[in-house]
Amino acid sequence: MSDLSGVKALVFDVFGTVVDWRTSLINDFTKWGETRGIKADWTALVDGWRAVYVASMDEVRKHPERGYVILDVLHRRSLEILVKDLGLLGLREADLQHLTLGWHRLYPWSDSVAGLTRLKKKFIISPLSNGNVALLTNMAKFAGLPWDLIMSAELFEHYKPDPEVYLGAAKLLCLQPGEVMMVAAHNYDLKHAQQLGLKTAFVPRPTEYGPLQKIDFEATGDWDIVAKDFGGIADRLGC
Amino acid sequence: MSDLSGVKALVFDVFGTVVDWRTSLINDFTKWGETRGIKADWTALVDGWRAVYVASMDEVRKHPERGYVILDVLHRRSLEILVKDLGLLGLREADLQHLTLGWHRLYPWSDSVAGLTRLKKKFIISPLSNGNVALLTNMAKFAGLPWDLIMSAELFEHYKPDPEVYLGAAKLLCLQPGEVMMVAAHNYDLKHAQQLGLKTAFVPRPTEYGPLQKIDFEATGDWDIVAKDFGGIADRLGC
Repeated sequence: MSDLSGVKALVFDVFGTVVDWRTSLINDFTKWGETRGIKADWTALVDGWRAVYVASMDEVRKHPERGYVILDVLHRRSLEILVKDLGLLGLREADLQHLTLGWHRLYPWSDSVAGLTRLKKKFIISPLSNGNVALLTNMAKFAGLPWDLIMSAELFEHYKPDPEVYLGAAKLLCLQPGEVMMVAAHNYDLKHAQQLGLKTAFVPRPTEYGPLQKIDFEATGDWDIVAKDFGGIADRLGC
Repeated sequence: MSDLSGVKALVFDVFGTVVDWRTSLINDFTKWGETRGIKADWTALVDGWRAVYVASMDEVRKHPERGYVILDVLHRRSLEILVKDLGLLGLREADLQHLTLGWHRLYPWSDSVAGLTRLKKKFIISPLSNGNVALLTNMAKFAGLPWDLIMSAELFEHYKPDPEVYLGAAKLLCLQPGEVMMVAAHNYDLKHAQQLGLKTAFVPRPTEYGPLQKIDFEATGDWDIVAKDFGGIADRLGC
């Protein structure tokens, strides 16, 4: 069993790990559409939007000469293409803005806030997400996430899984990589963190992608902690 | 009277404005010195340390080609000179480290936490300090400061009053400068913030420098809010 006595900070992937983006967005848009008299396949919009998420960041990662672009802007660009593809016509500027900012209004999984609150007593807790600072800050206020600070890929002008993000987080905290534990529901995120010397904790979120979920039902690497939820991580860390 | 209805975030100077660094450090070092059997004029050390604070940052501001240096490191460098000047001999590495990290263990003014807690309900609240991210994070946990996020000069690799810090904070929050209010007990900080379009709030902290205090007993500019403490700011902003 790993020696975790040196861990001082826990950094969390957010979309899928801390918050249930899919259910939150589908419910938010469905309700909003009813109020506004807009009929659409909101589930298709949300799934389509997330399907192009990684590719949109990879464009930024592959072309640093174009400058860093925050996730709010990538979300907006993808949305403009998607609404055309889905034949969702007549949306105004304010509508597109409302939908884009839906990513700031996400609800936590049922164990997230209680688990973070326990972990915060003993550790520094922070997101380490590809969401931009404003997105993560607004989400924390909306969802009641008790972060000590907000660390975003934006601070390093790199997207995960670029090493600059993981190592940048440790540096900002004046900690060694091995004093920082990455918590995620995604094995690929932990793989990159572990390669750089961070400790790792996995929680499965088997409904994150709804019926589209194909991976991450279970741990596929040698992670320091595998728990069923954030409460299990707190148990393991003696909080 | 200024229209403050557009303000969405309050950013705070920290040393002197939120926390009483002088009393905190003198008490901390006095107690620690007694435990360790070290006799020294701790008041002289603390006052001497703060006296070279601005000059140490100005060196970084004037020589960007040397790279950014965080405040913890500047504090340590200044301390090494000071202990020699004061004839404070025999301090070991761990002692110098303990003293330097004293800047992470500062107590808030009596109104700070209650005022911040009220303001947090309606606004994003963050430090905007020359202290580095780790320092501000550790201090928040030590002092119970309920920040939504931690913004430090370190994120912009500039020290206040460089414009990059004030404008960088607004940009990270995806806000216009006029949607951000700088709160400080120092008129010079507010002057720079106001020149860049930020809103401003002044609170006097007339005992910050103890008997050495010479300025900032009162507002000397046309600030949007002048209040006796953070509770007064919350009153004025309808929190």
